[in-house]
Amino acid sequence: MAYLVQVDFPHEGPFGDEMATAFTDLAKNIAQEKGFIWKLWTENEETKESGGIYLFDTKEDAENYMEKNRKNFDEFGIKGASMKLFKVNEQLSQITQGPLK
Amino acid sequence: MAYLVQVDFPHEGPFGDEMATAFTDLAKNIAQEKGFIWKLWTENEETKESGGIYLFDTKEDAENYMEKNRKNFDEFGIKGASMKLFKVNEQLSQITQGPLK
Repeated sequence: MAYLVQVDFPHEGPFGDEMATAFTDLAKNIAQEKGFIWKLWTENEETKESGGIYLFDTKEDAENYMEKNRKNFDEFGIKGASMKLFKVNEQLSQITQGPLK
Repeated sequence: MAYLVQVDFPHEGPFGDEMATAFTDLAKNIAQEKGFIWKLWTENEETKESGGIYLFDTKEDAENYMEKNRKNFDEFGIKGASMKLFKVNEQLSQITQGPLK
């Protein structure tokens, strides 16, 4: 059973290559989180938003990461973040080639 | 370059296996959309929400699907849906094993 964490927040930049440079170390750390499977990094320069879609092995692992992420948002003064936890419906996701690993 | 569509909406059910049965045909249709790469189906029985994370080849393919999805929400009377389009930051996503295919 996979759990998905959906995060988005207002973001004035950097975007693209500059964003990648700025967050490379953070990405390496996230890849080491307990129960972490993968993360896609999202960005929209037009709407000035950024975020991520994370997959975790268990609900507990997902919730622990969300709690850590909330603290990071507070620390960096990021306001207006949306963070949602979902179970993945694996039967339907298999029909649509959804990546569960 | 991959584009991600992030959708969530209030959903009273069905969830789990019943949701899978109810939406199997829809899933088969979605898998045929132009430029479609994959979709993960999301659900949260506690918060009464459902949604999906979609990956598309191009921005145009993603936007065309979003337009179709908006019409479906109207047709089915689904209110309060959130639908966001993002570019995937591929450099960061590769560090965190994000599935780009």
